[in-house]
Formats: sequence, structure tokens, C-alpha cells
Amino acid sequence: MADDKGFTLWFTGLSGAGKTTISKIVEEQLRERGSKVEVLDGDVVRENLSKGLGFSKEDRDTNIRRIAFVADLLSRNGVPVITAAISPYREIRDEARGVMGDRFIEVYVKASVEVCAERDVKGLYEKAFRGEIKEFTGVSDPYEPPLNPELTLDTEQDSAEEDAAKVLTLLEERQLIPAAQPA
Amino acid sequence: MADDKGFTLWFTGLSGAGKTTISKIVEEQLRERGSKVEVLDGDVVRENLSKGLGFSKEDRDTNIRRIAFVADLLSRNGVPVITAAISPYREIRDEARGVMGDRFIEVYVKASVEVCAERDVKGLYEKAFRGEIKEFTGVSDPYEPPLNPELTLDTEQDSAEEDAAKVLTLLEERQLIPAAQPA
Repeated sequence: MADDKGFTLWFTGLSGAGKTTISKIVEEQLRERGSKVEVLDGDVVRENLSKGLGFSKEDRDTNIRRIAFVADLLSRNGVPVITAAISPYREIRDEARGVMGDRFIEVYVKASVEVCAERDVKGLYEKAFRGEIKEFTGVSDPYEPPLNPELTLDTEQDSAEEDAAKVLTLLEERQLIPAAQPA
Repeated sequence: MADDKGFTLWFTGLSGAGKTTISKIVEEQLRERGSKVEVLDGDVVRENLSKGLGFSKEDRDTNIRRIAFVADLLSRNGVPVITAAISPYREIRDEARGVMGDRFIEVYVKASVEVCAERDVKGLYEKAFRGEIKEFTGVSDPYEPPLNPELTLDTEQDSAEEDAAKVLTLLEERQLIPAAQPA
């Protein structure tokens, strides 16, 4: 097999939209196909690269730039990367796109604040609505959806498995991974 | 050619000992042999991963842990990495070794404070001796040399080219890179 082709699946969306869930399924399926892959999840990155940073615009931007720096290092060496951080600001996502060029694949993981709040996987929305968490994206802090993402996943409509399949199909179409073998 | 074997050449030594100079030569020679390689230089990392961190023990440790996190991500995916940060504390270097296991190759880039101060490539030692820089490794902050590094490079005795050759020889002996073709 030829060298792996590096790329970065840049998931963006609200807390609870499904970024981590879908990224885990895509990760698993890439590994099943014999591909390398690294997931830079928002929480993992905050622990390992950005401890001490808060959630001001400046600190969020710094966090996202670090994720982009690492995703670029990996993807330019042929390693597929999935980032799964909220990354609320369009300008900084576009900056990441500028760094990685056509290795950058923006995936908008879309669900409304209302639906994410109903799910409230981590119990954060309730706290945010009560004002106990400040600068909470979608509640008390902005989220700027992508204008022209490579892929939009509507997690209010689709299951996580369906959305993961859409990601894999896009990667196949772009010849970034080999087509799945017929069963 | 088989998959590249990932490893991390972890250079450690005083400012001015020769870490960056030797790492650039090794980088060039690895590329000439068709190998991937990424250099995580101390200054580059401080700019891209650790802006805002100072030089207290705690901040230095955080900086080194971030370098180790990224070096591990790359090397476990088959990408050779050279880190070239002072990394003065033995405990945190050993922690990095613990993370990377036998992918971790510690290279002590050795020169005395006196010789580094004579070279004073960046004019920092003069300022440190005048007390204008606090927490300067080897002057007003500790440096703990490795007790059992995989390789020691004596840059008071050898040229940078000789030291780079020693690194390449070690990598060949460990079968991490193919032997050089005879001319």
C-alpha cells in the first residue's frame, strides 16, 4: 500500500452536538481499514496542551491554534487526524484551513442549542442556563457556524452511525482512503 | 520500503550547547535518506504550544510535557522526531521516556557553562551573568545532566558534523534507519 495520505477532519459544533461520538466511530472504522488515525478531542487537548487556558475569545483562539499546529504536524506526515473541539470562531478555523490547505476538511456537526441542551450529556447546559458557567458556547458565548464546510452532519436527523458513514464516503470520494471491500 | 519506524531523539543540554545546530544537520541528512522527520525546537514550541509560560520549574515542566505529548503522537505514527529543548529536569525527561518507551532516545548535548558562555550565540549568557535574565539554566537555574543517556555528544571536542554522524550511526545500529549507501 502506498503511503497514507494525511488529512484533518476538523469537526466543529456545539457541546453535545455529537463531535466526540461520531469521531470515535470514524476512528474505529479507519483503524479497521488499516489506517492510522489520531483523535484530538477538545477535552484531551485542554488537558495536554492547554491547561491553564480559559474560555475567553483569546484563550479559545490560542487553544485552537495549538490544535491546528499539532494536526498540521501529523497530517503533513501522512497521519489522518480528527479534531473534535467546539472551535466556535470562523476566523480561527479559516486560519487552520490556511495552514493545512487541502488537507483540511471542515465537518459541521450540526444540532440546535435546544436539542444539545435536551441531551445535556455532561450536565453543562443546565449550569450554563443557571448562569453557573460563563462564556458557554451557544448560551452565553457565540458560535459561528461554517459558511462553506466540506460536510454538514445533521445530528438531529441522522444517527451517529449514519453520520460516520457519510464521513467515510467523503474520504473515499476524495481518494484519501481506499474504498471499502465488498462484503 | 517498509513503514517508517518512529522514534524521538530527545536532545537535552544547556543553551548554546549545540542542540539546534546538530538537530538541523541530522534533520537534513534524514531527509536526504528519504526519511520523514519533524524537529520540535525549543523556541518553536514556546511560540506554538507554550506561549505565556515562563521559566519556573512548574512552567518548564508543563512545556516539556507538551513537547513529549506531541513527540509521542508523531513517533507512535512512524514519524521520526527530534526535540531540541533544554529540558533541564531529569524527572520530566524520565516521564517522557515512560510515555514513549523504547522510541525514546536521550541524547545529551554536552558542553560546560563556561564554553557555552564563551560562544554566547544569542547573547543570553552575558545578560544572565549581569542578572538581567532570571532563572537562566546553568547560571541561576539548575541543569540536571542525564545519568544514562543513549548517547552523549561532547560539543567541546567534536564538530557539529561529527556529532550528527554519531547520531546517524546510532540510528543505523538500532535499525531505525537503513544503512547509508556506499558512495
